[in-house]
Amino acid sequence: MAGNSFGTLFRYTSWGESHGPAIGVVVDGVPPRIPLAEPDIQHWLDRRRPGQSRYTTQRREPDEVKILSGVFEGQTTGTPIQLMIDNVDQRSKDYRNIADRFRPGHADYTYWKKYGIRDYRGGGRASARETASRVAAGAVARKVLGSGISIRGALVQIGLHAIDREAWEWPAVEENPFWCPDRAMAVRWADYLDQVRKAGSSAGAVIEIVASGVPAGLGEPVYDKLDGDLARAMMTINAVKGVEIGAGFGAVPLSGEQNGDEIRMKDGKPVFLSNNAGGILGGISSGQDIVARFAVKPTSSIPKPMRTIDSEGHEVEIETHGRHDPCVGIRAVPVGEAMMAVVLADHLLRYRAIGGEV
Amino acid sequence: MAGNSFGTLFRYTSWGESHGPAIGVVVDGVPPRIPLAEPDIQHWLDRRRPGQSRYTTQRREPDEVKILSGVFEGQTTGTPIQLMIDNVDQRSKDYRNIADRFRPGHADYTYWKKYGIRDYRGGGRASARETASRVAAGAVARKVLGSGISIRGALVQIGLHAIDREAWEWPAVEENPFWCPDRAMAVRWADYLDQVRKAGSSAGAVIEIVASGVPAGLGEPVYDKLDGDLARAMMTINAVKGVEIGAGFGAVPLSGEQNGDEIRMKDGKPVFLSNNAGGILGGISSGQDIVARFAVKPTSSIPKPMRTIDSEGHEVEIETHGRHDPCVGIRAVPVGEAMMAVVLADHLLRYRAIGGEV
Amino acid sequence: MAGNSFGTLFRYTSWGESHGPAIGVVVDGVPPRIPLAEPDIQHWLDRRRPGQSRYTTQRREPDEVKILSGVFEGQTTGTPIQLMIDNVDQRSKDYRNIADRFRPGHADYTYWKKYGIRDYRGGGRASARETASRVAAGAVARKVLGSGISIRGALVQIGLHAIDREAWEWPAVEENPFWCPDRAMAVRWADYLDQVRKAGSSAGAVIEIVASGVPAGLGEPVYDKLDGDLARAMMTINAVKGVEIGAGFGAVPLSGEQNGDEIRMKDGKPVFLSNNAGGILGGISSGQDIVARFAVKPTSSIPKPMRTIDSEGHEVEIETHGRHDPCVGIRAVPVGEAMMAVVLADHLLRYRAIGGEV
Amino acid sequence: MAGNSFGTLFRYTSWGESHGPAIGVVVDGVPPRIPLAEPDIQHWLDRRRPGQSRYTTQRREPDEVKILSGVFEGQTTGTPIQLMIDNVDQRSKDYRNIADRFRPGHADYTYWKKYGIRDYRGGGRASARETASRVAAGAVARKVLGSGISIRGALVQIGLHAIDREAWEWPAVEENPFWCPDRAMAVRWADYLDQVRKAGSSAGAVIEIVASGVPAGLGEPVYDKLDGDLARAMMTINAVKGVEIGAGFGAVPLSGEQNGDEIRMKDGKPVFLSNNAGGILGGISSGQDIVARFAVKPTSSIPKPMRTIDSEGHEVEIETHGRHDPCVGIRAVPVGEAMMAVVLADHLLRYRAIGGEV
Repeated sequence: MAGNSFGTLFRYTSWGESHGPAIGVVVDGVPPRIPLAEPDIQHWLDRRRPGQSRYTTQRREPDEVKILSGVFEGQTTGTPIQLMIDNVDQRSKDYRNIADRFRPGHADYTYWKKYGIRDYRGGGRASARETASRVAAGAVARKVLGSGISIRGALVQIGLHAIDREAWEWPAVEENPFWCPDRAMAVRWADYLDQVRKAGSSAGAVIEIVASGVPAGLGEPVYDKLDGDLARAMMTINAVKGVEIGAGFGAVPLSGEQNGDEIRMKDGKPVFLSNNAGGILGGISSGQDIVARFAVKPTSSIPKPMRTIDSEGHEVEIETHGRHDPCVGIRAVPVGEAMMAVVLADHLLRYRAIGGEV
Repeated sequence: MAGNSFGTLFRYTSWGESHGPAIGVVVDGVPPRIPLAEPDIQHWLDRRRPGQSRYTTQRREPDEVKILSGVFEGQTTGTPIQLMIDNVDQRSKDYRNIADRFRPGHADYTYWKKYGIRDYRGGGRASARETASRVAAGAVARKVLGSGISIRGALVQIGLHAIDREAWEWPAVEENPFWCPDRAMAVRWADYLDQVRKAGSSAGAVIEIVASGVPAGLGEPVYDKLDGDLARAMMTINAVKGVEIGAGFGAVPLSGEQNGDEIRMKDGKPVFLSNNAGGILGGISSGQDIVARFAVKPTSSIPKPMRTIDSEGHEVEIETHGRHDPCVGIRAVPVGEAMMAVVLADHLLRYRAIGGEV
Repeated sequence: MAGNSFGTLFRYTSWGESHGPAIGVVVDGVPPRIPLAEPDIQHWLDRRRPGQSRYTTQRREPDEVKILSGVFEGQTTGTPIQLMIDNVDQRSKDYRNIADRFRPGHADYTYWKKYGIRDYRGGGRASARETASRVAAGAVARKVLGSGISIRGALVQIGLHAIDREAWEWPAVEENPFWCPDRAMAVRWADYLDQVRKAGSSAGAVIEIVASGVPAGLGEPVYDKLDGDLARAMMTINAVKGVEIGAGFGAVPLSGEQNGDEIRMKDGKPVFLSNNAGGILGGISSGQDIVARFAVKPTSSIPKPMRTIDSEGHEVEIETHGRHDPCVGIRAVPVGEAMMAVVLADHLLRYRAIGGEV
Repeated sequence: MAGNSFGTLFRYTSWGESHGPAIGVVVDGVPPRIPLAEPDIQHWLDRRRPGQSRYTTQRREPDEVKILSGVFEGQTTGTPIQLMIDNVDQRSKDYRNIADRFRPGHADYTYWKKYGIRDYRGGGRASARETASRVAAGAVARKVLGSGISIRGALVQIGLHAIDREAWEWPAVEENPFWCPDRAMAVRWADYLDQVRKAGSSAGAVIEIVASGVPAGLGEPVYDKLDGDLARAMMTINAVKGVEIGAGFGAVPLSGEQNGDEIRMKDGKPVFLSNNAGGILGGISSGQDIVARFAVKPTSSIPKPMRTIDSEGHEVEIETHGRHDPCVGIRAVPVGEAMMAVVLADHLLRYRAIGGEV
């Protein structure tokens, strides 16, 4: 099966290149009679939009979404929903110098090896611009999930600087350009990233996505487990190199008795005394918060010169000028939220199919 | 789509419970005229087989595989290959005491919530016994990949005890019961796990899988990226809580110039000067070694008592006696290898479909 | 995706060759807590079983089904259900003479061209024996559909001899070896087929399958329409060359006003005044009876000599002796019923996923 | 899986309603470096375009296609290809009178029952306008197939008036507004359809699609057989009620020896002496012409009044004025060709995946 679709019942297909006329996404499998209008989607696209602070790329894209199908008189009809975003700020001339050179850490080399042709303008299909399609699909997924399920993301580490989890306050996330839940750390990151930017370098990041209000029962063992689908969803985001659920790699040094989340009853309902499982047991949601975390590598396109080759096999150097993102991880927060949303929406529909009352 | 299949063109469907009459796997999409016989599969099953050291469960299963279809006169025919393994050592009586209690960290609670019924005997479908099906499918995948691609796994950390990467020697992996590539560390792990076992506790582990000889070009952007599929493949293995590719979470503290794998020419061929990417760029293999790592949580079933509830909502305690696996991560090594193999075989066929000469 | 699976949510994977040790089917996606036992499946297999009259092949197969997984204490558990049928009456020696010759009308030639290898014993994977797997899966599908939906099939034409639709009586179907709903025609068919058999020839047939009690709303436009899926389902049965829904090809000579099924109200409910649509409009069930019809070509293996070639390109003659089925269409009736059942079960689950209360 | 996609490796997703701003299709899985430009697609869309004779609807649509992604410097890049067609001649006011009434033979009633909402303007998603997306995808499929495979369609019957097969001349198809290969019959159809139109009625049709130059080996037994996929492909075209391969229903009255296509050698190659199989044996192409035929019912929207109900359950009458297509089958010819192309392209890629040299 061709690789540009995601999901089984709630299924979207993404298309478009960084410097083509437009990008977009067809969302298929949306139940009928859900209220949906462009502002519902625009809201989330605006959060991902580049150029909102000096810490992200200065590409100026309004990212204005149009609904071309699947909605009638303000409601979904059960037919496929085409969401289109015109590319406005393309500046193709910036990229001529990298047409024949493979930027280290980028997909340039592998696209060229695989396809024998590549749209080098702005990374073409491999550009992070594709993530706008994910955010648009995620906005529709949130409508499918309904207001009882909330999905929030935060940046919890840049470079070596991890937040203090004791200082976590969700409102703080909306108050700084980093989606940082630790106010003190946000200040330190600002300084740190200014240094990184001036040095012509870049930094990696860790993002955490938390879904609350998810009912127990989502996930289809043993290969479409909820955590398996989340791992795939997050790992396919540009520049992601690792994914964790709950305690993740941090579970390894724990003992069995530390790691197992014990259960008690409270007000007639089961309560877990910890959440090392990240809300997923045996691939199925348990009713606890779903917690996923992913690592984003430092931006590969940097002003510092790097050694590489060109498409004819000559050894050359390359340096990337112009718009420069010192930490691509920042803009990955809304994308991670969107991927959580599409995975949950798909599994919600799948659970309903076998009789789950959700 | 129901959740017990994996892969697109090389696609297998796993079935069976821990204490049913048998488990097995149907492998569909195998190209014709590949030599295949039962010993080719048995070889890998024997590596996964429990009860081979005091560090793994004492369940005694011969795990003898039978080919029921898809092979004629020693060769695959292009039709589906059914591989069946009888369950021999079932001891159903061991499990009566947990029929109504949810073991913390196990799928007991979520299966019961999702399905309203569960085969509690030995974990039923959620048992690690299912991984025998993965290993069987992986053995077929290795035949599809051919001898030019090698897939090897090693255990690189137990609890807090990580190997010394400078001491890595592949032959060592075959010489100790831990698949440990660092001979000195293997000795320390033996002591450590003896303590863990005596304490009635358990330990987590990190496994690393390396595929060499993989041609450039495997992986289908942007949702069926090779790393995305590997992440899903590994995360669906029992007890896995995290997956990394290449530098993984370790890429976060690196600078852009440290992380990007520079390229030079050697003997007329491109050579990467490092492998932080883990052999995958933009979701496509680069020709370097593919490196995936995953975290296995400490065994949830332990002799130490844990607090939980039963299916009627009473607060109870539970302790697991009988066969006890102090570190389930150990047996996950051959399983991780198998999952690497099935992912690569699938993408090899997919690449051929669009003209890739591999 | 490999070709041995059918369905999306209710999805089964068939495996096995005519003369291997066994055939079977894994049914995945079955909702939990449905009572299921071997006799539920055996009942339908017994209807398909060969050798029950002189009008079908004399292969003696008990076709005894075993449930190997997915059922616990008499109920489905939501995990995959493996159904296995041992091959008993294999008589491999019968087939040696056709090992290198391509029987006209058979898959011998195309399997050999495609795969470069073929299990020639009894047709291998291309044998009608595979339809036992369909019937087994169909039996499970019927349980998913519940008792409110009935699926019945009948043979309505053999050779040029079509039934009189005015004489249709469902009970008659159980009273003759042809599933013929027209008692008088059943007598004529008996004579006719005796002649055909004596002449060493064979005859084609038309089968009609009717599903009653199907709720409105099943079918997913525009490519997973209910009629599209039925067409594929029926056309993949061995020897089928045509499929119709409702009036089918008979709609062509009708005028628009004759063909359109008008609607009136009766007892507060919509009533269609005819059923040329065969219960499907725009790919979605309307609540009327679903009516599908398919054409089965005359048996290709006949005692009469036919001209063909062998695998080395020599011109040869071939004649098939031994067990001979003068009209393979007869045994296709339970198979067509099963395919109707699996299509409906799949669409029932899919409709539930988007909120359909069925 | 949601229902608006078709194909496995060559896979397209269609979107759009009759009276929305646009319709389109994303084609995923196209191999790289295939020359493709808008005129390649426009050529086929122009053949389907309405309003070209008095025998088809008078809706005036330029059907101008735009390529929005997946093509770079005149070649495919291996990334998804978005093809968009703006809706120009929408005339929404025409349809207000049918907003609450269910046209007999249309999808109005079933969409309303299934989704509880429907875009009634011009049939919404159920409009034959969707077939433009099929034709666009088919144009891309033809490029994948290459010039060695030709796909041609013809109309072989309108109402009771079938062509004389002895008079079949392919060039004639381009010379009359009916795609009729029998020149004399084309004249009779013109008269007949004028009468039908004046009578405010409509007529059904049979279309035949022939693919030549198809290599042996395409098709994946046993559920993704080539004929199974063609049956689904054709049956999902608007108003189709039956599909045949080769002799189809006409095989039923034949004897086994008449029906089996005998084989001889000619110039060192196998030659079939007839083609009752329609080029497919056991679900796999044999190298002969692939022949598929389908029945299109008479147009349901006719000026003659029909009895129906409205959405509140009142018995009403309905008559359709304005643009009226006396035989929708005529415009189905390019659509049937397109569906043949997409099925073959998909199976070509699938065959390559397992090593087929095509």
